[in-house]
Amino acid sequence: MATAGKVIKCKAAVAWEPNKPLVIEEIEVAPPEANEIRIKIVATALCHTDLYHLLESMQPQGFPTVLGHEGAGIVESVGCAVILQYCCFFSGDKVIPLFISQCRQCHFCKSPRSNQSRHDAMAPPTSRFTCKGKELLQFVGTSTFSEYTVVNEMAVAKIDPMAPLDKVCLLGCGICTGYGAAVNTAKVEPGSTCAVFGLGAVGMAAVMGCKAAGAKRIIGIDINPEKFEKAKVFGATDFVNPKDHDKPISQVLIEMTKWGVDFSLECVGNVSVMRSALESCVQGYGVSVIVGWTDLRDIAIRPNQLISGRTWKGSTFGGFKGRDAVPQMVKVYMDKKLMLDEFITHHMTLDQINDAIELMKQSLRTNLNQWRLIRTLHDNIRTHPY
Amino acid sequence: MATAGKVIKCKAAVAWEPNKPLVIEEIEVAPPEANEIRIKIVATALCHTDLYHLLESMQPQGFPTVLGHEGAGIVESVGCAVILQYCCFFSGDKVIPLFISQCRQCHFCKSPRSNQSRHDAMAPPTSRFTCKGKELLQFVGTSTFSEYTVVNEMAVAKIDPMAPLDKVCLLGCGICTGYGAAVNTAKVEPGSTCAVFGLGAVGMAAVMGCKAAGAKRIIGIDINPEKFEKAKVFGATDFVNPKDHDKPISQVLIEMTKWGVDFSLECVGNVSVMRSALESCVQGYGVSVIVGWTDLRDIAIRPNQLISGRTWKGSTFGGFKGRDAVPQMVKVYMDKKLMLDEFITHHMTLDQINDAIELMKQSLRTNLNQWRLIRTLHDNIRTHPY
Repeated sequence: MATAGKVIKCKAAVAWEPNKPLVIEEIEVAPPEANEIRIKIVATALCHTDLYHLLESMQPQGFPTVLGHEGAGIVESVGCAVILQYCCFFSGDKVIPLFISQCRQCHFCKSPRSNQSRHDAMAPPTSRFTCKGKELLQFVGTSTFSEYTVVNEMAVAKIDPMAPLDKVCLLGCGICTGYGAAVNTAKVEPGSTCAVFGLGAVGMAAVMGCKAAGAKRIIGIDINPEKFEKAKVFGATDFVNPKDHDKPISQVLIEMTKWGVDFSLECVGNVSVMRSALESCVQGYGVSVIVGWTDLRDIAIRPNQLISGRTWKGSTFGGFKGRDAVPQMVKVYMDKKLMLDEFITHHMTLDQINDAIELMKQSLRTNLNQWRLIRTLHDNIRTHPY
Repeated sequence: MATAGKVIKCKAAVAWEPNKPLVIEEIEVAPPEANEIRIKIVATALCHTDLYHLLESMQPQGFPTVLGHEGAGIVESVGCAVILQYCCFFSGDKVIPLFISQCRQCHFCKSPRSNQSRHDAMAPPTSRFTCKGKELLQFVGTSTFSEYTVVNEMAVAKIDPMAPLDKVCLLGCGICTGYGAAVNTAKVEPGSTCAVFGLGAVGMAAVMGCKAAGAKRIIGIDINPEKFEKAKVFGATDFVNPKDHDKPISQVLIEMTKWGVDFSLECVGNVSVMRSALESCVQGYGVSVIVGWTDLRDIAIRPNQLISGRTWKGSTFGGFKGRDAVPQMVKVYMDKKLMLDEFITHHMTLDQINDAIELMKQSLRTNLNQWRLIRTLHDNIRTHPY
């Protein structure tokens, strides 16, 4: 490819500082170095974790940066690949960048019990981006709000060449996170009763995961009842709007199910909801999984909630080892056994990124009452048709 | 037996009110009613949970009462047994009263995943005790600080007639609690690294459980280094005294083990130690179990401690279903595959109960620095030789 080995100038949405609109800039993307891959991003979705970094945690040392981590694209060129021993990438390959690496060599990659590789590829200060003479940080190693990005090969999943990138980009974060939390982390059992707190994209994916695992009853909980119709599509059987009840939601669920639910999944990212989700589980053997992301405050719980036999877990990216699992999830989608199209609410261009952020912020604001939903249905921002 | 069907007058240590010495009184023990068994208590140990009720939670509605729940005895007489369908008790049988019932009929008893029976036998206001015209409450359905007690058959384990009651009484609580937490709840794996926080009786039993499960490295943690020699007897391989370190104990353990321990067991009953134990586990797949009892304050934890892949659990009585498991544990002891004798520090009479409480309080006071140990090695109070 004519651009291989050269700096590429392209468009990206730059987050110069916390809590400010992104700025569409021309940036320089350096050629990939050893074991790195330069990817032409074809589609990217907006996830609330992007907004969490921009608007909530607002760590100054995380800026300037290029956000975005739920994308898909095509390999433009490959760096000098001295240890590309497991997978060869060629220009033209369709890929999904991963915000958790899978080096396949560390203690954790070798363990079947964890997807937490010790290799944090392209973490600051490593970056291949510059703009106006300044280095831009890469966000969680991916930075998909750019026409081009450079990712370490241990954080790239090579996928089916027939996969529609503007759909499968959603497998880069939210859908795997929710689906895997049900299937891999909670290990939902056939015939069980589940509760999914928060019906954003991650919650909807968790509902889909519960259904795939054979749950008999799946209770969707949201303060926005407009989500319930959509949740039915993914498999939810019952619905609870906490605004309809004066008592704690855990008590409502215990009354609905006699003892409490077998499995609960918190897909909001709110410490109070995390507590409610645990308390909604059946005493003795209930399992609650934290899926939503927040880490600004402690969660609190009475010891006896655990001592009486509950299990509290969490996972990142649904416990999936990305390079192994994402290509498989793409296949499951292409075999029509996984819904993705149903998650997409808008198609927008990269130039409209601030409009997309506003749409998500509005959605969050309407839900700020008892808890905040961390994700709307994902806004798929197609940078250009492919 | 000559006493069958009659009220028995006997000695008991009565807790008239919170935070006061127990009083040795003559009490009346009514005959057992339907499905109840009157037991001549032969040996009982003092557990910190007795002191928790007396000196810490101090709920006025829990008094006057007869404490004690780690005992063993002999059936004196049996009530009208209309539904004694699973096990027949006869006078002369050796038994261990259980503070968690096993009715074998409820949803939870039928589930292999839980030991939390829905039947809370002999819970207040049910009691067969009176003293000076006042009803005395039964403590957790057992009340072993009495020469005689009446227990529902669903909370009685019939054991080997050859079992030495002054040893196997310890299986009524602490030893099963610690051992089972390692084996049943944590499901410690062969070759793993474990950390046991607090080397009281429950912690020592947890060490023994870790060893039985095949753990390769068992790190005992206590601020009283005098416990370390004893912990070696039960299988501990490494020792940490938090007083020897300026940094958080979780950091010390992570440095000792490279990534953190595979399994940690909190055997103290202190919310700060519960947090430390979770934070000491390996990110990605570590499992932490809360074994120590407290429920007066919340535990707090950063969400990412779980989201990054840890599991937090708890159990009561080590997850054992008492009527099934306690007779088996007695057998394991009699086969010399379980240590019990090594837990016993004192032999005292019922009249010396306040001395035993003082001994335990002193032991707690010496450990009040960074955390409190909830149990000393159990003080076995033999009411009379058998």
